Amino acid sequence: MIIVKIGGGAGINLRGIIQDLAQLREKFIIVHGANALRDKLAEDLGQPKKVVTSVSGYSSVYSDENLIDQMMMAYAGARNKRIVELCHQHGINAVGLSGLDGKAVQGVRNKGIRIYQDGKLKILHDYSGKPEAINKDLLDLLLVHGYVPVLTVPIIDEQNNAINTENDDVVRVLQKAMRADTVINLIEAPGFLENREDETSLIRHIPAAELESREQQVDGRMKRKMLAVRKLFEHGASRVVIADGRGEHPVADALSGKGTVIE
Amino acid sequence: MIIVKIGGGAGINLRGIIQDLAQLREKFIIVHGANALRDKLAEDLGQPKKVVTSVSGYSSVYSDENLIDQMMMAYAGARNKRIVELCHQHGINAVGLSGLDGKAVQGVRNKGIRIYQDGKLKILHDYSGKPEAINKDLLDLLLVHGYVPVLTVPIIDEQNNAINTENDDVVRVLQKAMRADTVINLIEAPGFLENREDETSLIRHIPAAELESREQQVDGRMKRKMLAVRKLFEHGASRVVIADGRGEHPVADALSGKGTVIE
Repeated sequence: MIIVKIGGGAGINLRGIIQDLAQLREKFIIVHGANALRDKLAEDLGQPKKVVTSVSGYSSVYSDENLIDQMMMAYAGARNKRIVELCHQHGINAVGLSGLDGKAVQGVRNKGIRIYQDGKLKILHDYSGKPEAINKDLLDLLLVHGYVPVLTVPIIDEQNNAINTENDDVVRVLQKAMRADTVINLIEAPGFLENREDETSLIRHIPAAELESREQQVDGRMKRKMLAVRKLFEHGASRVVIADGRGEHPVADALSGKGTVIE
Repeated sequence: MIIVKIGGGAGINLRGIIQDLAQLREKFIIVHGANALRDKLAEDLGQPKKVVTSVSGYSSVYSDENLIDQMMMAYAGARNKRIVELCHQHGINAVGLSGLDGKAVQGVRNKGIRIYQDGKLKILHDYSGKPEAINKDLLDLLLVHGYVPVLTVPIIDEQNNAINTENDDVVRVLQKAMRADTVINLIEAPGFLENREDETSLIRHIPAAELESREQQVDGRMKRKMLAVRKLFEHGASRVVIADGRGEHPVADALSGKGTVIE
């Protein structure tokens, strides 16, 4: 079982990815983002996303009802259905699912963001959280009958609300539940870079045992990505490839070892 | 088996409908629209829908790629996922599907609209068509395992393109494939009206045998609706209720005979 995570950047070559997937013999599940589309939609609607900064200095998107609607439109709507359409055009019998559908991805809502507002400490509640479980029965039911699940956010919380979450976290619980041995993460870069300003500084290979020490050397989004990868190995993945989603054959390239291979 | 079609008007009481459905003992499938949401989205995006008039004087929406994206956002995205969310909040284990997902609703693309442009006859091709078949295996698979399908447009054509179609036509092929005996059509009116300007002119009962002669007495959208209802009876429906989707208990009211009952 392979999990293919398709990044939501505007430069991702969706057609190339789906063409490659149509050649795969192993079973696979797709998880995808849509951040470029969501940002464009928000801009076109004149409703830019709100970012709040917690008292501990951590910035995050404020996921109000309106933002969840936008996610439903961009992720579960246009991007998901265009991927499903492309899949059928290449002979992949895809079924698009948000985490809400059949409670495919179940999460726990965040307790709230502690912020300072007008000098006062305040707890801001929004619709965001962390995935905790997968409806494995539903995914197995589809897979056994020849359907390929195409998963995306939002997911569903313990009160049955739609909530925002990170797709990296969805991949983590999905890999664990489905015991996927391989995870391919297609992004808008050649893989993990020593220097993020320099695309030639690709790290070709990272032994899984080195992930923890590597995490200490990087920061921000990269640190979070490294942590996400480490968790995949804790739950039984044997190979994670962070690879370029912009090339002609992103999946074939990733499986032939281009990108950052972690094993 | 009951098919519940939920209109896409802004006045539809979604919560009331889902509350009622949670009490149903019979199996059901939901088909829904989202025209109010789509129109609002198009307006907010400054991309109003284009209407073209054919040489025979028939007006229709021009379904270009952009309109299909908007449908994916409004119908398969926000409206579908909010209905699925509401379902879970009321204990209905819903799975939202567009017609693309697992080729749930398969159609045939229109040959093109014959228009006059600058005095010349021209054939305008768009992404619209008519549904012809249902993936009954997929719907049965979900139903047998306790999931309630929540279906909406777009659907998939014979070349695996996403196409626009009328939800009334989706209901027609769905009723035939699933052999549903009852169809409830929840709209923003008390039912079929003698005079569409007068909500008290409700037609309470129409014998199915009278549908054809009734069709001759009405015009426009109403005529198309009457024809759609007649086709349901040709394919084995025993009861069709056109009822008000705006009340407190739209489904319970419809099943107790409020609205226009056709049998």
